[in-house]
Amino acid sequence: MSSTFGKIFRVTTFGESHCKGVGVVVDGCPPGLELSETDIQFQLDRRKPGQSKLTTERKESDQVVILSGVENGRSLGTPIGLMVANRDQRPGDYSDMQAIPRPSHADFTYQVKYGIRAGSGGGRASARETIGRVAAGAIAEKVLRQVYGVQIVAWVSAVGDIDASQPDMENITRQAVDKNLVRCPDQAAAAKITGAITEAKNAKDSLGGVVSCVCRNLPAGLGEPVFDKLDALLAMAMLSIPATKGFEVGSGFAGARMRGSQHNDPFIQKGKRLGTVTNYSGGIQGGISNAEPVYFRVAFKPPATIGREQATADFKGKETVLAARGRHDPCVVTRAVPIVETMAALVLLDCAMRQSTRCFKDLTPC
Amino acid sequence: MSSTFGKIFRVTTFGESHCKGVGVVVDGCPPGLELSETDIQFQLDRRKPGQSKLTTERKESDQVVILSGVENGRSLGTPIGLMVANRDQRPGDYSDMQAIPRPSHADFTYQVKYGIRAGSGGGRASARETIGRVAAGAIAEKVLRQVYGVQIVAWVSAVGDIDASQPDMENITRQAVDKNLVRCPDQAAAAKITGAITEAKNAKDSLGGVVSCVCRNLPAGLGEPVFDKLDALLAMAMLSIPATKGFEVGSGFAGARMRGSQHNDPFIQKGKRLGTVTNYSGGIQGGISNAEPVYFRVAFKPPATIGREQATADFKGKETVLAARGRHDPCVVTRAVPIVETMAALVLLDCAMRQSTRCFKDLTPC
Amino acid sequence: MSSTFGKIFRVTTFGESHCKGVGVVVDGCPPGLELSETDIQFQLDRRKPGQSKLTTERKESDQVVILSGVENGRSLGTPIGLMVANRDQRPGDYSDMQAIPRPSHADFTYQVKYGIRAGSGGGRASARETIGRVAAGAIAEKVLRQVYGVQIVAWVSAVGDIDASQPDMENITRQAVDKNLVRCPDQAAAAKITGAITEAKNAKDSLGGVVSCVCRNLPAGLGEPVFDKLDALLAMAMLSIPATKGFEVGSGFAGARMRGSQHNDPFIQKGKRLGTVTNYSGGIQGGISNAEPVYFRVAFKPPATIGREQATADFKGKETVLAARGRHDPCVVTRAVPIVETMAALVLLDCAMRQSTRCFKDLTPC
Amino acid sequence: MSSTFGKIFRVTTFGESHCKGVGVVVDGCPPGLELSETDIQFQLDRRKPGQSKLTTERKESDQVVILSGVENGRSLGTPIGLMVANRDQRPGDYSDMQAIPRPSHADFTYQVKYGIRAGSGGGRASARETIGRVAAGAIAEKVLRQVYGVQIVAWVSAVGDIDASQPDMENITRQAVDKNLVRCPDQAAAAKITGAITEAKNAKDSLGGVVSCVCRNLPAGLGEPVFDKLDALLAMAMLSIPATKGFEVGSGFAGARMRGSQHNDPFIQKGKRLGTVTNYSGGIQGGISNAEPVYFRVAFKPPATIGREQATADFKGKETVLAARGRHDPCVVTRAVPIVETMAALVLLDCAMRQSTRCFKDLTPC
Repeated sequence: MSSTFGKIFRVTTFGESHCKGVGVVVDGCPPGLELSETDIQFQLDRRKPGQSKLTTERKESDQVVILSGVENGRSLGTPIGLMVANRDQRPGDYSDMQAIPRPSHADFTYQVKYGIRAGSGGGRASARETIGRVAAGAIAEKVLRQVYGVQIVAWVSAVGDIDASQPDMENITRQAVDKNLVRCPDQAAAAKITGAITEAKNAKDSLGGVVSCVCRNLPAGLGEPVFDKLDALLAMAMLSIPATKGFEVGSGFAGARMRGSQHNDPFIQKGKRLGTVTNYSGGIQGGISNAEPVYFRVAFKPPATIGREQATADFKGKETVLAARGRHDPCVVTRAVPIVETMAALVLLDCAMRQSTRCFKDLTPC
Repeated sequence: MSSTFGKIFRVTTFGESHCKGVGVVVDGCPPGLELSETDIQFQLDRRKPGQSKLTTERKESDQVVILSGVENGRSLGTPIGLMVANRDQRPGDYSDMQAIPRPSHADFTYQVKYGIRAGSGGGRASARETIGRVAAGAIAEKVLRQVYGVQIVAWVSAVGDIDASQPDMENITRQAVDKNLVRCPDQAAAAKITGAITEAKNAKDSLGGVVSCVCRNLPAGLGEPVFDKLDALLAMAMLSIPATKGFEVGSGFAGARMRGSQHNDPFIQKGKRLGTVTNYSGGIQGGISNAEPVYFRVAFKPPATIGREQATADFKGKETVLAARGRHDPCVVTRAVPIVETMAALVLLDCAMRQSTRCFKDLTPC
Repeated sequence: MSSTFGKIFRVTTFGESHCKGVGVVVDGCPPGLELSETDIQFQLDRRKPGQSKLTTERKESDQVVILSGVENGRSLGTPIGLMVANRDQRPGDYSDMQAIPRPSHADFTYQVKYGIRAGSGGGRASARETIGRVAAGAIAEKVLRQVYGVQIVAWVSAVGDIDASQPDMENITRQAVDKNLVRCPDQAAAAKITGAITEAKNAKDSLGGVVSCVCRNLPAGLGEPVFDKLDALLAMAMLSIPATKGFEVGSGFAGARMRGSQHNDPFIQKGKRLGTVTNYSGGIQGGISNAEPVYFRVAFKPPATIGREQATADFKGKETVLAARGRHDPCVVTRAVPIVETMAALVLLDCAMRQSTRCFKDLTPC
Repeated sequence: MSSTFGKIFRVTTFGESHCKGVGVVVDGCPPGLELSETDIQFQLDRRKPGQSKLTTERKESDQVVILSGVENGRSLGTPIGLMVANRDQRPGDYSDMQAIPRPSHADFTYQVKYGIRAGSGGGRASARETIGRVAAGAIAEKVLRQVYGVQIVAWVSAVGDIDASQPDMENITRQAVDKNLVRCPDQAAAAKITGAITEAKNAKDSLGGVVSCVCRNLPAGLGEPVFDKLDALLAMAMLSIPATKGFEVGSGFAGARMRGSQHNDPFIQKGKRLGTVTNYSGGIQGGISNAEPVYFRVAFKPPATIGREQATADFKGKETVLAARGRHDPCVVTRAVPIVETMAALVLLDCAMRQSTRCFKDLTPC
């Protein structure tokens, strides 16, 4: 198990689908930050199930409680404990699913790795695990916004074979993203995606998709060569989200098809700072932010748990057929948008705090 | 700076282009391993510059020396120090390049981050930095091969707009990969790539490309949920390699276009173990290896340093024109093949050693 | 903040005196362990305030709840969340103490370090912080007992100027220690100590003391040279307990007065293993356990919060007089006994799990 | 193996007695620091063997070479590799010592832990291992001195049963300490100690002793509650030095005999800062520095390797007699003085850099 992320702004998550609750301990949050449950609940609400017909119909209120580390509305600099109680703590009737590992789910690998696994609901491989990340990341977002004016905006850029047009990365906002249930700022594409997800849901099937993200107003200098490069940490953060299969930053895989003379971003003075004319680099050069927008894309596979019958084998290797019961997301990208944003925030704030050690003379807290 | 990678099998690299040498300290290597410089030199030779007309013509012998941790040809379990001396320690005449940051290189970001930078050759952002990783990873490979029979094979699967056909992932070997200078097992594609690189070189330009990699005979159970998932660590490892822009595992971005009923990998008994019929998962489910081959692809951008004239600005923001002097790689993927393999080995061995803590009763070294 | 301890068996604590609760996340616990609240409550009960007239009279039930990581009475290998609710969450009337930092307490240093501090009760410097450690350590104890038969026994060996005689370290038990309220197995000394603590309490003063500890049935090979030596980690663990001022292992400071010919522990065959005739080494040589009992002593200062008037200065430097109100421990060593034991357990189990990586071939969980 | 120390200013050491060399990689050093070999050699010279008749007569020049991370006399912020070549790389004739583990040395425990050990000279348990720490710590000292004016001074305060008088901790200097070969500023005690060590040496025996250390001009706020308290980290650092048996800070074990009313350090205004009248706390309260001098004492056992005959058993358990050949230190405290100082510097600088993350707004390197 490795449930801790970050070096300075460190988060440690806990909880699975059918225990008392899921949560996180945030260690290293700057002291003196104004903080209340409201600051955190916002992103949990965007992540929670049952938001719309496009997600699982299972409803959870997912109310966060601050357990520690905040007094009189201000962070103390001590660990901030956060918890969301699980409404339904009774392991359900998953008896037949116990014998048959779901294809492309984590049932089999958890059993092999630990010699035991949660009897239901996917345990730590359940989507509920992401609650801790999102709660912690909402705090990180607030710090970044307050100190640097950082804006992190993610959106759905593709579902199945429907590709949305690329928004203006300098100006796309969360309000624009949240205008439709799909969280896709291209309204025409959003309509098509709504149709496709509805169709897949009715067919007891599922769909994959892509989430894009841009981070603006970052200071230059974030990212720690040579292993903790900013893009390397973002890649790790994104691939640690359940159901992800790929990550690309800036020009990405398309950049591999280009020539240096096209791909290089020439420098140009932008106000007080040196900027670049183009941004194929995606705001990162040599693993370090250059103050241009950081943007990246994350591929999500179609959810493994589907209602359709699948020919497969049980744990003993005997051929069988599985049709998952219960209510499942036909496509995860809509709910993944806040997860991508908050994971990005965790990476960026940790990098900013690590960079601050290069100017270590002034030890007085801000 | 973050020059340490891994939790149990930990490597710490040092050195830049024009200091006394580059190297690595490997801490946590299993004791009793047969080890000599030869085991390490093999991959350094595949990485070194000047191998062929397709790489930089700068020649370096890159001979590794074991400084510590090995006695009478066996590892002691103590830190293994490895060093490759730099032949040319004199900072060259880079005076005009001092004033002009190379577009899409790390000159600008290093200067901003550290307030100082190596006067020449890219410092830690130089390709020489990868020598430490490759040397350490060659040891990791040997351990994995000896204990589990793990085979890690990477190859060039695309350069510019030339895509090679996919080899048989169950059988592709390093010998097959090394049959041509490009390290592309599709001979027809290799010929085209040779032509394209030669053309780009003559045009004082550069080309991007893709390296693919497969890891076979891995035990199931590797990878530490929830943050240190096997695919998340591989993504981080690959994006920490200079010039990378993307990573995808298994079905990758193509998987985002699929439906669950297509994408799910049904289980089937394979000899003594439960395997899967297809392998869209890329050998990893829930962040944990399932004993099927792990495969992934890494996108490399075209090298930033090119001989062609580029309109850009100097550090002070003044418009200028830069044409890099010196001998540079027109395309890095050929030399990147051993880097991808050895970084994969570092991730896999560290995960195997972490998994071993789940059976911690037997404390006698093997 | 650094609220995480351990590399493989990692614990992250949270909570201060007047928030919703205090607790811990235990990451890396071996899967399949039988575990219930009872296993943990035992040591919390030995730690809790209000046990006797020798401790603070403030009563707290300190009931632990398992939030996650355990299903059907067995650990899942996933993070185990543990919490003890705080009964009194209302910050008390500490208004005058707000202006005057308590001498030798952490009020001043927390204020300087964080620029803010908990308004009452000491915040993270409160004794309540130790609840998380003790709860996590109780799990570690159970694993060590079950796997190796490890026995960890601590006791009060001195209070003020009263020194207890040394018990037989091969045979001293917790039952013997808990026979009196002082937790000192020398009954005559215990009686004197009871008198001394009562006297100090009546005088609104406090007393320091020493806790000794022995760990038996440890396997040889625990401890990671060169920085994470077993004795170095024990020293860190003990000095991280509030109010500690010193640590010595084996011969300790007395050993510094000896000659090598006296101090060296000659080897002798003991059944199937090589043991030592004497044990001045305290069971550790070169930072690694040698299978002889590990023993050490920890010095605790007299509690800083006393009811007597003290001439001091307020935060602005103005001379004043402070007499602490409330109910405080006149001497902490009695309640420190389970804290010392459980911190030792955290160190020992983590070292055992780290040592298991030296035999990493077998990846099947026990 | 755990050869890395520190979180931000991280050092990774390598090397044993008879390999090519011993050294260290320093990662996280502030960029722009003026640095040359001379800054480092100073402390290596105070540590090296053969300085005087009181140490081993084995002579080594121990010249350090900077391998990387420094250009034109300034640190680049990249890893600084440092190495000292071993003059004698030939494993000596230790054949009989191979069969007989030295009592109270690490021969037995290394063999059990790793299943293999260096054939001679103690391997990583050799005193040569400390070269890396001292070299890295010399850099840390320079940074602390330059940024805060920190002064770290250690001295020998006891050898065998000879106790030196305590110097004025506000004013004791390294020059005063180095006035005699013993490094004890009490000249009368130094003379007696010289006699005692000479006598022990002639008797082929060895002596233990105590090193004291004071750190002045530290800023308040250093140390990370709750596990990485400043005193906890110092304890760990000191107990990781070979041959140590105890650590006490401030009042130490004597403080355990005191009453709170005596032991508490009342506050008083000192110029611009709030200080304390007494300093039983040893400059640390709640694990955080308070700007008063930090002082502590470290107990060293008598060296295990002695020329006298000792009755013991060989690895097979057979009774035998061992008399160590070769030249050994009769007492290590004299050479331990710079080791204690530099380990303290590593802790203090790392804590200062960690504290700087609390003011993370300004990301421009100093």
